Amino acid sequence: MIKQKTNKIYSTKSKIDSEKMQKAQALKPHIVKKLSSKETHPETVKFVALGGFEEIGRNMMYLEYKDEIIIIDMGLQFPEEDTPGIDYIIPNISSLEAKKDNIRAVIITHGHYDHIGAIPHLMGRLGNPIIYTSLISKEIILKRQEDFPNAPKLNFEIVKSGDVHQLSEHFKVEFFGITHNVPDGFCMVLDTPVGKIVHGGEFKFDYDFNGNPRGLDVWKKIGDQNIHTLLLESTGAEVPGYSVSERIVEQELEKLFKKAEGRIIVGTFASLLDRLAEIIKIAEKLDKKVAISGFSMKNNIDIVRNIGYMKVEKNTIIPLEDIHKYRDDKLLLLCTGAQGEPNASLMRIANGEYRQIQIKKGDTVILSSSIVPGNERSVQVLKDNISRQGALVYHYGTMDIHSSGHAPQEELKTVMKLVRPKFFIPMHGYYFMRQKNSQNAQEAIGLKPQNIIMADNGQILEITKTNIKITEESVPAFYVMVDGLGVGDVGEIVMRDRKILAEEGMVVIIATLDRKTGRFLKNPDIISRGFIYLKENKELVEEVRKKIRLMIAKIPNHQQVEPDYIKALMRDQIGQFLYNKTKRRPMILPVVIQV
Amino acid sequence: MIKQKTNKIYSTKSKIDSEKMQKAQALKPHIVKKLSSKETHPETVKFVALGGFEEIGRNMMYLEYKDEIIIIDMGLQFPEEDTPGIDYIIPNISSLEAKKDNIRAVIITHGHYDHIGAIPHLMGRLGNPIIYTSLISKEIILKRQEDFPNAPKLNFEIVKSGDVHQLSEHFKVEFFGITHNVPDGFCMVLDTPVGKIVHGGEFKFDYDFNGNPRGLDVWKKIGDQNIHTLLLESTGAEVPGYSVSERIVEQELEKLFKKAEGRIIVGTFASLLDRLAEIIKIAEKLDKKVAISGFSMKNNIDIVRNIGYMKVEKNTIIPLEDIHKYRDDKLLLLCTGAQGEPNASLMRIANGEYRQIQIKKGDTVILSSSIVPGNERSVQVLKDNISRQGALVYHYGTMDIHSSGHAPQEELKTVMKLVRPKFFIPMHGYYFMRQKNSQNAQEAIGLKPQNIIMADNGQILEITKTNIKITEESVPAFYVMVDGLGVGDVGEIVMRDRKILAEEGMVVIIATLDRKTGRFLKNPDIISRGFIYLKENKELVEEVRKKIRLMIAKIPNHQQVEPDYIKALMRDQIGQFLYNKTKRRPMILPVVIQV
Repeated sequence: MIKQKTNKIYSTKSKIDSEKMQKAQALKPHIVKKLSSKETHPETVKFVALGGFEEIGRNMMYLEYKDEIIIIDMGLQFPEEDTPGIDYIIPNISSLEAKKDNIRAVIITHGHYDHIGAIPHLMGRLGNPIIYTSLISKEIILKRQEDFPNAPKLNFEIVKSGDVHQLSEHFKVEFFGITHNVPDGFCMVLDTPVGKIVHGGEFKFDYDFNGNPRGLDVWKKIGDQNIHTLLLESTGAEVPGYSVSERIVEQELEKLFKKAEGRIIVGTFASLLDRLAEIIKIAEKLDKKVAISGFSMKNNIDIVRNIGYMKVEKNTIIPLEDIHKYRDDKLLLLCTGAQGEPNASLMRIANGEYRQIQIKKGDTVILSSSIVPGNERSVQVLKDNISRQGALVYHYGTMDIHSSGHAPQEELKTVMKLVRPKFFIPMHGYYFMRQKNSQNAQEAIGLKPQNIIMADNGQILEITKTNIKITEESVPAFYVMVDGLGVGDVGEIVMRDRKILAEEGMVVIIATLDRKTGRFLKNPDIISRGFIYLKENKELVEEVRKKIRLMIAKIPNHQQVEPDYIKALMRDQIGQFLYNKTKRRPMILPVVIQV
Repeated sequence: MIKQKTNKIYSTKSKIDSEKMQKAQALKPHIVKKLSSKETHPETVKFVALGGFEEIGRNMMYLEYKDEIIIIDMGLQFPEEDTPGIDYIIPNISSLEAKKDNIRAVIITHGHYDHIGAIPHLMGRLGNPIIYTSLISKEIILKRQEDFPNAPKLNFEIVKSGDVHQLSEHFKVEFFGITHNVPDGFCMVLDTPVGKIVHGGEFKFDYDFNGNPRGLDVWKKIGDQNIHTLLLESTGAEVPGYSVSERIVEQELEKLFKKAEGRIIVGTFASLLDRLAEIIKIAEKLDKKVAISGFSMKNNIDIVRNIGYMKVEKNTIIPLEDIHKYRDDKLLLLCTGAQGEPNASLMRIANGEYRQIQIKKGDTVILSSSIVPGNERSVQVLKDNISRQGALVYHYGTMDIHSSGHAPQEELKTVMKLVRPKFFIPMHGYYFMRQKNSQNAQEAIGLKPQNIIMADNGQILEITKTNIKITEESVPAFYVMVDGLGVGDVGEIVMRDRKILAEEGMVVIIATLDRKTGRFLKNPDIISRGFIYLKENKELVEEVRKKIRLMIAKIPNHQQVEPDYIKALMRDQIGQFLYNKTKRRPMILPVVIQV
C-alpha cells in the first residue's frame, strides 16, 4: 500500500520536474537539447542509487562512464512493519548484471551491515569484482562470508587514509579516514571525467577533551580541490546541533562504573567497536576484568585486537566461565542485546536462560545504545525483567551514555562550508530527511535549490561538467527480499497476505462434492487460524456449515456445478456472514474437491 | 511468550516477599499473625489494580472495605506487537462481577481513552453503578457511548474541583482540579477507614508566562491532611527535569504560524483539547480562519464549546467546504492523523484521497504530537509524502511544538514533597518506570523502600492504618481483548497463530483418500498464503505432492489409514522438507478427506 502511495507522489514529482525542465529549456535551449537526447553524452557520467535514497539502509550506488562502472557500498536493509517475517532486503541489481564485465571496482566505505550486508548475495552475480576497503572492513566482510559457503572467494585491495587508486581508465579515487562508530571508515574524492565528486561516507565529528573537533583538516583539504558534487548522509539532518562527544559518553560511563557497587553489565551493539574499546579502557583504569558474551561481539573484538587496532592488556579479558573467580565489584560484562532481541545474550541473561550468569541484586545494567524503532516494546520488557530482579538499570534515553554515529545539522553544515561544492546530493535517508539536508545546504552555503539534487532510488542522473540532471529514465530498484534461503522469492503478494493473516487470520472452507451430482459427499470442513478459536465457537462453525449447504442446495439440479463459481460464492457470502457476526474480515480460502 | 517471562519473574519476586514477611514476623509476630489470617481484618482496606500497573493504559483499580467497593477509572489499552490485529485490551473484571452489588461508585479522573475506554463494555456487567466525573469527561464518555447502542444508559454525578462526596458509608472523596492535556481532569483525596489515600490522577505542571508553576496550592492543601498513601503516575518518571511549558509551545507555534506564507495545516491528537484551544486562539490573534477535519476532533471541539470551556469567536471556525473562499495565508486547518493513521484526515490529505484539500507548495504542515511507539514508520511515510508535494514539514522531534501531558521527574518530586505521604504506590507504567518513580520518592522525601509498594496488576494489597502489605492472593488480571464485536474471544492461541502467520505464512495440504482402500482419489491439493508465491514455485509444489504420495504409498496395504496419523506425518515431514528447502517454517495445516 505504501508502495502505491509513493508511486502516486512520484507522478506529482515528475510533473514538477518536467515543469522545471520546460523553464530551463526556455533559458538555455541548446544545452538542454543535448542533454535530453537519448544517447549518452560523451562527457556525461551517469549516477544511480540502488538503495539508501528513500530509506535508512540498503546503501548502494554506482557511477558509470562509457564502459566503466564503479560501485560504492552493497548494504542490506532491515525489515519494517510492512515486510513482516523476512530476514532483510537487498538492492536490486538487475540493471548491473547485464553489464557486469564493466564493473571495475566495488568500494566499501565501512563495515556496517547497511553497507556490506548484500555482498555475499550479490558479488557472485556481478562477476566478483575487486573490493576496495579498509583492513577492518575487510575482516568484518570475511567473517560474515563464513555463513555463505557457496559465495565466491572475494578479492580485496586494502586502502588507507591518503591512498590514491586509479580504479579504471577514467576513475581515480583518493581516500580519507573519518570517525564513525565503527573504526576504519572513510570518505573519498572520486576524480571523474566531469569533475571531482565527494562521497562523504558516514561520519560524526570526533571531539577532544576540550570539546574541539578533530580531523576538520581532512574536509579542508578536500575543499581545496574544486569540488563538483558533494554527497552527504542525511540520517542526522533533522537533528539540531552537534554530536554528544564520545569524551562525554566516556566520562558518564566512568561515573556510572564508579558508582556501581556490584557487577556491571553493559549492553550495546556488537558493531559499536569504538564504544567497546572505550568501555574496556575504562574497565582497565578501574581495575576491573571484562567478560564478553555474544558471538558477534566476541568476533568483532577479536578482529580489531588481531589487527592491533584495539589495545587491551593481557589479563583484562577473561573467559565467561571464569567470572565466579572474581569479586562482583571487579567484574564488567559486555554483551549484545540492548535492543531486547530474543536470542541475544542480554535478553537470555534477563530471562534466566543463561547458565553462567543471572541478574542479581546489586548489579548495574547499562544499555548504551539507542532504540531502533520497532524495538520499544522489547526494550521495555527487557528493562522490566532486569529491574524486577533487583538490578539498577540505566538507559540512553535519560542520560549521555550513547552518542549516534551520524553527524547532526551543525556538523553537516560545517562540512558543507569546508567542501564548498557546486552541487549537493543528500543521500542515506527518507525523503523528509534528505529534504532537511537540502535545507541545511541552502542555509550553510547558500546553494540554490536547482543545484541540490533530490534523487530517488533507481533514477538515472546525468552529471556533466556544468550540470546534474535527473533524467526520465530509471533502473529497477524495488525491494529484493531475503527470507531464509530464498532471495527475491518473497514478493508483494506474499507480504500483503502476511499482513492480512496477522491482522485478521484466515478460514479454510473445504467443500467435497460428488462430481456427477454436484451434491455434498460430506459435511464441509472448516479450519481456522488467527481468527477465533473454533473449539470455543462451535455454534458459529455450525452456522457456517449450514450456510454453505444452503448455498449449494440453491443451485438447480440441472445446472453444472462450477468449482470457481462455488468458490467465489463461498468467499463472498461466508466472508460477509463472518463480518456481520464478528466485524472481522479473515482471509477466506475456499476449496472445492470433486470426487 | 512475554506473559510467560513475566510469570517467571513473579516467582522470584514472591520469594523475596515471603523472605520479607518472615523477617517482619520475627520483629512483630502478633501483628503479622492478624494480617496473614484469611478473613478480612475489620480495619483493612483492600486495594487491587486491574490494569495500568504493568503497562501504559488499561487503567482501573478498586478499593474495598467490608461490602463497599469504589472503582477508579475504566480504561483500555491499545494493542502492541504481541497482540496483532485486535482493537484494544480491556481490564479483566471477573473478580468484581460476583460482588457487583457492592460497587458504590465509579470515579473517572479524566476523559482519555486509557481511563474511559472500557466503560461501554463493562458497566452493564457491573450493575451500571453511578459514575462520578467532571462535565467534560461525562460528555466525552457519552459521545463514545453512541457507538454502543446496546450498552446501558449511564448515571452520572458531575463533580467540580473542591467538591466533597460521601460515596458510601466508609468512603468519602474530595476532588481537586489539575492540569493535563485534556481539560477538567482531577486528582482526589479518598477518606477511608484506614486513612487518607491520594490518587494523583494524570497531570503536569501548568506554567505562567514567567515560567512559574500554577496550582501548587492544591498539592499543599492536600499535604496538610496527614496523608496515609500517595498514588502517582509513572509515565514521566524516567524523564529528567520539568515539562516544556505550554506557554513555550504556544510561542513556538505562533512563531511558525507567522513564518508560514501559505496555508497552515496542524496535525495533532483529537484528545489534546488544551492544545487545540491554544492553536485556535493564536489563529484568531493572527486573523486566520480555522477549518477542522476529522470526525473525533470536530466532536471534541463541539463538546468543549457547548459547555463554554472553549471560547471561540463567532466567525473563526469555518466549514471545510468553504476554505476556497479564503486566501491561503488566512487559513489554518486543524486535523487528526499526526501518527500517520491510514484513515485519519492528514494521511488522506497527504495521499490525495481528500476531495476538499490537497497538499500544495507553500503549505506549512506542523505535527504537534509525539510519536506513539510503533508508529515511526507511518509517521515517516506521512512526512515523506507531504514534503514530496512541496510543503514544509515541522515536527515535534526537532522543536518545542509539543509537550507531554505527564509530569517528569522534578514535577513528580515536587508533588511528593508537598503531599508528604507515609506510603507511596507508583502507578501507571511498566515495572521499570514505576521503579524509577520509587527512586524519585526515595530521593525526594527519603521514603524507605519498605514504604513504597511495587504492586502488580491483580495483586491484593491490604492497607491498615500503619501498614500496606502485598498479600499472596491475587485476582485475575490477564488481557481481555476486544476484536470487532468479540470481547474476550481472541485469546492467546489466536494471538500466537497470528504471529506465526505474519512471520512465516501457512500451507494447507488436502489429501483426499478413498475410505475403503486408503489410497488417493486425487492429487493432493496445496494452498499457501504468506509463504512463497506458489504460482512462481511450481517445482516446489510438485515436490511436495510427490512426497505426500510416497508417504501414503509406504503405508502397508493391510494397515488401516488413520487420518490423525497421516496428518501428523504430513505436518512433520512436509514441514521439515520445506524448512530444508527454504529455511522457513510456515504453519502446516494438513487436511485428510475420506470419501
